[in-house]
Amino acid sequence: MALVTPRTLSGFKDRLPKEALAKALLLNQLSDVFMKFGFVPIETPHLEYADVLVKQGSDEIQKELYRFTDHGGRDVALRFDLTVPLARFISQYKNEVNLPFKRFAIGSVFRGERAQRGRYREFTQCDFDFIGSDSTSCDAEILQVIYASLNQLGIDEFTIWLNHRGILDGICEYCGIVNDKDINSALRIIDKFDKIGKDGVAAELQKELSLSGKQVEQLLEYTSIKQQGDSENFFKQIAFMSEFNESIKRGIDDLKALYEVLAPLQMDRDTYRINFSIARGLGYYTGIVYETTLNALKSIGSVCSGGRYDNLTRTFSKERMSGVGASIGLDRLLAALEELGLLHMNATSACALIVCMDRSYFGYAHLLAETFRRSKVPIEVYPEINKLKKQFGYANTKGYEFVIVIGESEFSSKTLTLKNMASSMQMNNISFLKALTLIQEEKEDRTI
Amino acid sequence: MALVTPRTLSGFKDRLPKEALAKALLLNQLSDVFMKFGFVPIETPHLEYADVLVKQGSDEIQKELYRFTDHGGRDVALRFDLTVPLARFISQYKNEVNLPFKRFAIGSVFRGERAQRGRYREFTQCDFDFIGSDSTSCDAEILQVIYASLNQLGIDEFTIWLNHRGILDGICEYCGIVNDKDINSALRIIDKFDKIGKDGVAAELQKELSLSGKQVEQLLEYTSIKQQGDSENFFKQIAFMSEFNESIKRGIDDLKALYEVLAPLQMDRDTYRINFSIARGLGYYTGIVYETTLNALKSIGSVCSGGRYDNLTRTFSKERMSGVGASIGLDRLLAALEELGLLHMNATSACALIVCMDRSYFGYAHLLAETFRRSKVPIEVYPEINKLKKQFGYANTKGYEFVIVIGESEFSSKTLTLKNMASSMQMNNISFLKALTLIQEEKEDRTI
Repeated sequence: MALVTPRTLSGFKDRLPKEALAKALLLNQLSDVFMKFGFVPIETPHLEYADVLVKQGSDEIQKELYRFTDHGGRDVALRFDLTVPLARFISQYKNEVNLPFKRFAIGSVFRGERAQRGRYREFTQCDFDFIGSDSTSCDAEILQVIYASLNQLGIDEFTIWLNHRGILDGICEYCGIVNDKDINSALRIIDKFDKIGKDGVAAELQKELSLSGKQVEQLLEYTSIKQQGDSENFFKQIAFMSEFNESIKRGIDDLKALYEVLAPLQMDRDTYRINFSIARGLGYYTGIVYETTLNALKSIGSVCSGGRYDNLTRTFSKERMSGVGASIGLDRLLAALEELGLLHMNATSACALIVCMDRSYFGYAHLLAETFRRSKVPIEVYPEINKLKKQFGYANTKGYEFVIVIGESEFSSKTLTLKNMASSMQMNNISFLKALTLIQEEKEDRTI
Repeated sequence: MALVTPRTLSGFKDRLPKEALAKALLLNQLSDVFMKFGFVPIETPHLEYADVLVKQGSDEIQKELYRFTDHGGRDVALRFDLTVPLARFISQYKNEVNLPFKRFAIGSVFRGERAQRGRYREFTQCDFDFIGSDSTSCDAEILQVIYASLNQLGIDEFTIWLNHRGILDGICEYCGIVNDKDINSALRIIDKFDKIGKDGVAAELQKELSLSGKQVEQLLEYTSIKQQGDSENFFKQIAFMSEFNESIKRGIDDLKALYEVLAPLQMDRDTYRINFSIARGLGYYTGIVYETTLNALKSIGSVCSGGRYDNLTRTFSKERMSGVGASIGLDRLLAALEELGLLHMNATSACALIVCMDRSYFGYAHLLAETFRRSKVPIEVYPEINKLKKQFGYANTKGYEFVIVIGESEFSSKTLTLKNMASSMQMNNISFLKALTLIQEEKEDRTI
């Protein structure tokens, strides 16, 4: 039989233990934060009817969709995000879920885009949304969740950039860009500000939308406004823009209301700032929008983005369903944490390895391991009889702090020999309790 | 624009919060157990080259495969289990992983089989395997993990049924069934023992394999042997079978060695028993095999099955790679836990809801919530201003134990009013610390 070459599809990725362990811990920490705020998980399938997914997706996403005909002749596709399935879910179970409904979802999504460095065709999204309420309280809470999530992961220095679609629409209107299609094109171009710079944006705006030089200048003047310093002064500085039109006024009022809810909190005020260039390309946002950048790693772009939308379920229902939510780009966040040295990259989840000098000691070794685990010490039993050198090599490669050796004297006296791999300290023929104490002391030292 | 009917594909399933929350907690508990034994997670994509998946799959699985051509003209398919991707992974990274290699993996797999009650086309598998060692220590450990997992979930009464492929092959050989194809057919039929009974098995054996009445009788006699009582006596009773042939002898010796390693452990001995009818249909098992049934719910079948294989990577490599592992059927286990009343079906992960009587109190409400969360009390802020009746209704439906009300007097005196939803006890205008104490006391009571 010819052998098959073991390989993954281009744009798809395996995670080896170190990375998979780090990701699992990260997801646990994030779930914990979401649940502390009363968000609950939901689960939807990876595969959906294609018409459920594509109506709401942009043209680009339609091209990238993994779409095929299943055994039953159905037109099906792999989900490309977690928002469209949420819209489908809310429409389908509107009588079963309580509104307002707070859910989080973590899962793989699939986009057949051109594979490039750091971009995958299957990637993990981590979404949290607050559905069925127009209240500013929800917007404030989503920001608190972003703040608490990054803090939980050990990231202190970050900025949540806030804007409002009403302000962007209003600026466009003020500059004479009136139809929705042109506004969307303009916003898409402005969104590239960080990538292609002011001149790049100006050139594209002139070329694609045939704007006059004056229009482009105005558009850039207003969209480059950023909050510096405290919010009170900032709102005074931009007060004149509320006079431009109703759309801008609505945007500024919403942002003010948001700041009022956030004001009493212990959230560091420097972490959230208004920036009129934040557009979020997606068409469905209608209110406050945001992106989050890490101060020490701005280049990687936003690690968490979102905003308010006023009609999530328009594809499925005539009933209007507003909400606000955000999405954490997990792969990007993992890469960032690694670069910042904040990722715990261990090749094992246990802290000690037991090795035996003879097969007949395995029963005793497993009994010891069982007893350690009951005392909350995760521990592994090396399953082979080898030269100690090989067994210690295995312990070293996996990063074990302790090796416990069971030889003839340990077995017959029901003791053990404990070696600290870092210090090379070795204690011969000690009791289980003595070993437990030594291991626990080391664990505590590390935690401090 | 015509509306799309919100719907899921036949055989695919959404999980509403209660169920999704229960599943998330269950997976956390299982991961914790695996990690205590030093198993580490790995992740592989949901989508693979079709040739990677199908060579190793049975004919039936090939028919059930979700297979299609992607944008780049590649022949691709959704994984149908986590074992084939593991084999691909091990072959691909053999220089990067340390052998022996202990991994767990939790994820969705896809099989387009005919949808039926309790069977889904996308379902969650939870696998743990010990690769690259022939040692009985590994077999013993996989059994310990099954035992610890079920215990962790609150299940005390279960049986791990053990058998050995050598014994089954040897019984077939002894009964005159010699070629591999016939042996596999016989085992597949014997595997149906619990479903179709002794007579059903006899009829199928006679029909499909043209066995004589005597052959069928012998086959049924030996495969219906089950351990009753302690293992020492049982091994004495079956000692004569070791004389039949080498294959049976190897099987009995392996089981004896396994029992020796397990003997000193605190595992309840009644939980594991030898049963010569356990076949596990899958062709790749070559050593000890097992199934796990819940004593109170035998009808649902095995919740955790596995065994030892001697060549996991045969499709990918000439190098032999043995191992042992098991798979927990998560959907089946969830259903079982629910039926046994062991599932915590909460519609929220928080324990209190804060409601405001006026929008201007939201800032204060969020500050309170932030402070509760810092004291490890998960809490939700109701985002709308409604009649108290509606807000209490929401709290009731979600199963909240406490509601905190912020009205004018609470806001101005920086206090809160706490209502216990179960007892209807209400404390007006109390301090944060008083409320915290009351909530924490209730939480502790519940834990005890």
